[in-house]
Amino acid sequence: MSLREDALELHRVHQGKLAVTSKVPVSNARDLSLAYSPGVAEPCKEIHKTPERVYDYTAKGNFVAVVSDGTAVLGLGNIGPHAALPVMEGKAVLFKAFAGVDAVPICLDTTDVEEIIRTVKLLEPTFGGINLEDIAAPACFVIEQRLKEELNIPVFHDDQHGTAIVTLAGLINALKVVGKRMQDIKVVANGAGAAGIAIIKLLLSMGVKHVVMCDTKGAIYEGRVEGMNPVKELIAKNTNRERVTGSLEEVLEGADVFIGVSVADAVTSDMVRSMNRDPIIFAMANPDPEIRPDEAMEAGAKVVGTGRSDYPNQVNNVLAFPGIFRGALDVRATSINEEMKIAAAYAIAELIQPHELSPDYVIPKPFDPRVAPNVAKAVAKAAMDTGVAQLFVNPDEVAERTARLTKSE
Amino acid sequence: MSLREDALELHRVHQGKLAVTSKVPVSNARDLSLAYSPGVAEPCKEIHKTPERVYDYTAKGNFVAVVSDGTAVLGLGNIGPHAALPVMEGKAVLFKAFAGVDAVPICLDTTDVEEIIRTVKLLEPTFGGINLEDIAAPACFVIEQRLKEELNIPVFHDDQHGTAIVTLAGLINALKVVGKRMQDIKVVANGAGAAGIAIIKLLLSMGVKHVVMCDTKGAIYEGRVEGMNPVKELIAKNTNRERVTGSLEEVLEGADVFIGVSVADAVTSDMVRSMNRDPIIFAMANPDPEIRPDEAMEAGAKVVGTGRSDYPNQVNNVLAFPGIFRGALDVRATSINEEMKIAAAYAIAELIQPHELSPDYVIPKPFDPRVAPNVAKAVAKAAMDTGVAQLFVNPDEVAERTARLTKSE
Repeated sequence: MSLREDALELHRVHQGKLAVTSKVPVSNARDLSLAYSPGVAEPCKEIHKTPERVYDYTAKGNFVAVVSDGTAVLGLGNIGPHAALPVMEGKAVLFKAFAGVDAVPICLDTTDVEEIIRTVKLLEPTFGGINLEDIAAPACFVIEQRLKEELNIPVFHDDQHGTAIVTLAGLINALKVVGKRMQDIKVVANGAGAAGIAIIKLLLSMGVKHVVMCDTKGAIYEGRVEGMNPVKELIAKNTNRERVTGSLEEVLEGADVFIGVSVADAVTSDMVRSMNRDPIIFAMANPDPEIRPDEAMEAGAKVVGTGRSDYPNQVNNVLAFPGIFRGALDVRATSINEEMKIAAAYAIAELIQPHELSPDYVIPKPFDPRVAPNVAKAVAKAAMDTGVAQLFVNPDEVAERTARLTKSE
Repeated sequence: MSLREDALELHRVHQGKLAVTSKVPVSNARDLSLAYSPGVAEPCKEIHKTPERVYDYTAKGNFVAVVSDGTAVLGLGNIGPHAALPVMEGKAVLFKAFAGVDAVPICLDTTDVEEIIRTVKLLEPTFGGINLEDIAAPACFVIEQRLKEELNIPVFHDDQHGTAIVTLAGLINALKVVGKRMQDIKVVANGAGAAGIAIIKLLLSMGVKHVVMCDTKGAIYEGRVEGMNPVKELIAKNTNRERVTGSLEEVLEGADVFIGVSVADAVTSDMVRSMNRDPIIFAMANPDPEIRPDEAMEAGAKVVGTGRSDYPNQVNNVLAFPGIFRGALDVRATSINEEMKIAAAYAIAELIQPHELSPDYVIPKPFDPRVAPNVAKAVAKAAMDTGVAQLFVNPDEVAERTARLTKSE
């Protein structure tokens, strides 16, 4: 059968992909009296007396809401919250399989920014973290920013930061392959959506100095009037200090790195040829990349990554978000900050030993069992180092526990 | 160890009681491509095209939100949404163990009626049903009523209707024991909270003609001014047509049935002695009943039920809500109507054969494995008979499936 038929059958046979299960026995009256009335009153009273004990006596500390309004689902666009549900269930499946996180799809029947923010805040008692998913830009920026400010549990928009972290991991290794340094490279990004903006912000945090971002109207520069929004204004102020103008084709000339989160075929062989020596290409448009890897390589690209599993160097968010939440939850982090994201990127990148590095292998495989434990460990450590952790634990134990939780799946 | 210590340890050892698990394998790239990108786009597209297919391709049809604002938790009162979480997790555990329903605790950080209504409506894409829990009266009446009107998935406030249905089941059998008929009896209820009101409404639907309801100010009658609210006004208009006034003690004289959902020791031996021959007493105050069963029996009561597992005839909601949701979900009912509730009560009552009936056995035991399948079957049938079912199935298959789902736990 085709992928299409197999996927439909898989979803239909199981009536979706998620189940809720009990961690405690309910076989007799005694079980019932402990898990429910009257025994359940005891943890209730303890939490009422000491609110943070909710983490001891309930599943909150391992529950993550996968929140979407269905406005930017995969490459399908604004298909609404019902049609988005299979993706959110899939995300929850990955959370569990890759890091033992209990995730619940929360598809919201509104696209109103204030209403989404308010609803997520009202849901906080049940959840230890919030993973925002498939919410269109620029609403996603506002929603994430406000929730980060107003909640004291981790809030993470995976379409932004998951992609950014894995791209950064790939870039760290790709620069080793071509022998260039982060502070020297010129990066051109195409696509000013959620992922593109987040990648650029993370690269700036990493000390990348020369960045030009393009959207459908070409280079974004300070003073540009057409097609701007508050987030692009911020990008304009913090990148492209030379105020370069022009099309993607024009600004790509001489660049070291191309980062595409745009549309199929946005880059031609000639454009690759116009780049600096040993170009690095992350062509992550889905399902079809900005340029096919073989075409890019023929035109002189040294390292090519895409979003696809059938090419080398897949930028797959599953390398990041499970371990990031695992690490953040395990130290009860109040947020996921830049340091934790950068630590996650290094934790992914460093799994490829120097002697293993090659143009075809700058990003680990999604099923590499070392990834989530190493990311969780690094993220937990970074959270403790930067003062956002509320628990102090041995990072090695975080890694061991993550490996254990993953194996039991 | 004590119940208290055991209960705390159970909750602490497992870090709460609930987990989310995957129904599909995620062991290799092919699995990933079916459960997540790119394969997951196929069910998304199907649902986008034909919205009701969300029931075929996602877990929505078996997911129930257990929604609370923590304002009326067990006998603990308004302890807030965080401290309520152990109860909601417990409820979810029971949903799964007794009827294979996947239930998710949703503890909301607001007590604003409009905000609760709006939030539940926004959550609808993910859930096939809404179980309201431990929300204080009279807010719970408004919330349930509005949600029933504005959503087309089943909405059920268990504190009201679960208790009412099991009480009715017990009463159906108790009347057989004492040889009285529903239309002849005089019922006095004490406690005009969620459960009390619902019990009275259900008894009226059953054709009970003589009902007087009391609250802390005594009998509720049409024209009473003190301590009324819209729900009590409705009760005043539909019960107590003789406009009897006075204390519980006064109105209980000559009654056939006492229904207590009030406080410990509200009823004395003398009050029982003042009732009609063979009084039936449901003394459901928690944890201590309105009168102890042995005391009531000594004073002449014929049948006594309580909320406790250590006395005969426990009015335990677990007899009702799992099977009710199972039946409603299996026929994709758009609501849970009076007929479905009454069908559930008969389904519970009829499991006790005439030759088994006794004053000590008018309500089946919580772990009787026949209960949920029989309730689910009756509820599914009643939904189909009354036109609120969107699927038509063989009721016997609903029962068989329920038994199967329960066994696999």
